[in-house]
Amino acid sequence: MAPLIYTDDAADERLDDFRNLTTADRRPDRPGGRGFVIAEGTVVVRRLIESRYSLRALLGVERRFAELADDLADVTVPAYVTSADVMSEVVGFHLNRGVLAVADRAPQPSPETILGHARVLAVLEGVGDHENLGALFRNAAALGVDGVLLGPGCADPLYRRSVRVSMGHVLRVPFARLDDWPGALAGLRAHGFRVAALTPRADAVDLTKLPSEAPHERVALMLGSEGHGLSDEALAAADLAVRIPMASGVDSLNIATAAAVAFYEVTRRG
Amino acid sequence: MAPLIYTDDAADERLDDFRNLTTADRRPDRPGGRGFVIAEGTVVVRRLIESRYSLRALLGVERRFAELADDLADVTVPAYVTSADVMSEVVGFHLNRGVLAVADRAPQPSPETILGHARVLAVLEGVGDHENLGALFRNAAALGVDGVLLGPGCADPLYRRSVRVSMGHVLRVPFARLDDWPGALAGLRAHGFRVAALTPRADAVDLTKLPSEAPHERVALMLGSEGHGLSDEALAAADLAVRIPMASGVDSLNIATAAAVAFYEVTRRG
Repeated sequence: MAPLIYTDDAADERLDDFRNLTTADRRPDRPGGRGFVIAEGTVVVRRLIESRYSLRALLGVERRFAELADDLADVTVPAYVTSADVMSEVVGFHLNRGVLAVADRAPQPSPETILGHARVLAVLEGVGDHENLGALFRNAAALGVDGVLLGPGCADPLYRRSVRVSMGHVLRVPFARLDDWPGALAGLRAHGFRVAALTPRADAVDLTKLPSEAPHERVALMLGSEGHGLSDEALAAADLAVRIPMASGVDSLNIATAAAVAFYEVTRRG
Repeated sequence: MAPLIYTDDAADERLDDFRNLTTADRRPDRPGGRGFVIAEGTVVVRRLIESRYSLRALLGVERRFAELADDLADVTVPAYVTSADVMSEVVGFHLNRGVLAVADRAPQPSPETILGHARVLAVLEGVGDHENLGALFRNAAALGVDGVLLGPGCADPLYRRSVRVSMGHVLRVPFARLDDWPGALAGLRAHGFRVAALTPRADAVDLTKLPSEAPHERVALMLGSEGHGLSDEALAAADLAVRIPMASGVDSLNIATAAAVAFYEVTRRG
């Protein structure tokens, strides 16, 4: 059981991992950034405890630790117990979820490792919004997508806001960055993946036809940013382009929502 | 063309429709509430201009009115032009979209009017979160749902945040409140609708089987709140229960995302 350590001193140096969170969760190469993985709220803290990331410490109000008692049974890092006010003072803003956990980053698997084990993958280009990226991971986890490959221009899935919006699923769904873009798509093809690009273009195949157009065991769904969509290079490197049948006069769906619909179409075939 | 009226006085009484927006967009029966319909940003302002709601005035920076020039061609209400700073001072918070429009509410159609013309409907219970409700309307518009019926506990679709998150589609997709709950569901059935309740319950039919389980022309998809789902009464009044096939160990999708997946399954049959 994690040792519960009571403190009511916001200046307590043992709480430094949690200090000024809005800068501490930045990458280590940014000013003030320490690149920690930060979980907020009992649901996400639980996922961080279960994850492969190495826990450093927890900070929360007593009631939240009571809720987490079972999850903390095998945890040995300190759990600092304090008031909501002291928590706010330490982290630098009001935090209404009552509990935080901090972990160190860990090396990500290689793209090859991920695609060796996957049937359905998401491949992203230019998804730079942390909340959209987090929501997309949540949807990937719910609908059975086996991994996410990040092309250029994608945000950091381990940034605090992505972690929160994903409900902690960025800590579970394997992901890796692709350095060679769009060259890496040929590598996917060599592993038996059919690369389907999701786009609103009128000449794309209706998504409902994807199972007949790509009756492959393995499918990689490629998605671009909400604003600009996929680059011409990425579209040209795909095996086919698919579109969600959309009512006329309506702008496209939010990227994470469009991803959910496409994930559903592909994974439900299993 | 709307007359452009320049002002740099935040106390200008002609701007009163835009004053303290966080209270002004409340229902008229709440303190400070005037129940206006408020659109923020060029995309949503455009939709408000095109809507059946009667425009009162616009307020924005010059650049945004230039973008809206075509849309304002037939508009006769005043368009107040000012600086971003004066706008912030008037509305009471920093607004980064640069243009606002205010309209009066209008009576909503009756449920009977909506279901007389619809093939696919969404029926909601307890969707009390304004952003989830707005996102759901956006998804309904994109995927071709013909109307939304609001059971008990649903938020106000015309609240400012719902309007914004919906990208203005709450101004286009017809909606009505159902007073008799869940009794009104029998009325849907009398109009030839098959009422399918979306639920995570394990004994529900897989959503992919809905087309064969309910080969009806008209389908009403019933959705509950993200937290509590549908009430037992609502589930009992449905014709069948359907569930999105979900990976084990994952909490349910966000309500608007789950709705999008279900809308896709139902509307793509058309």
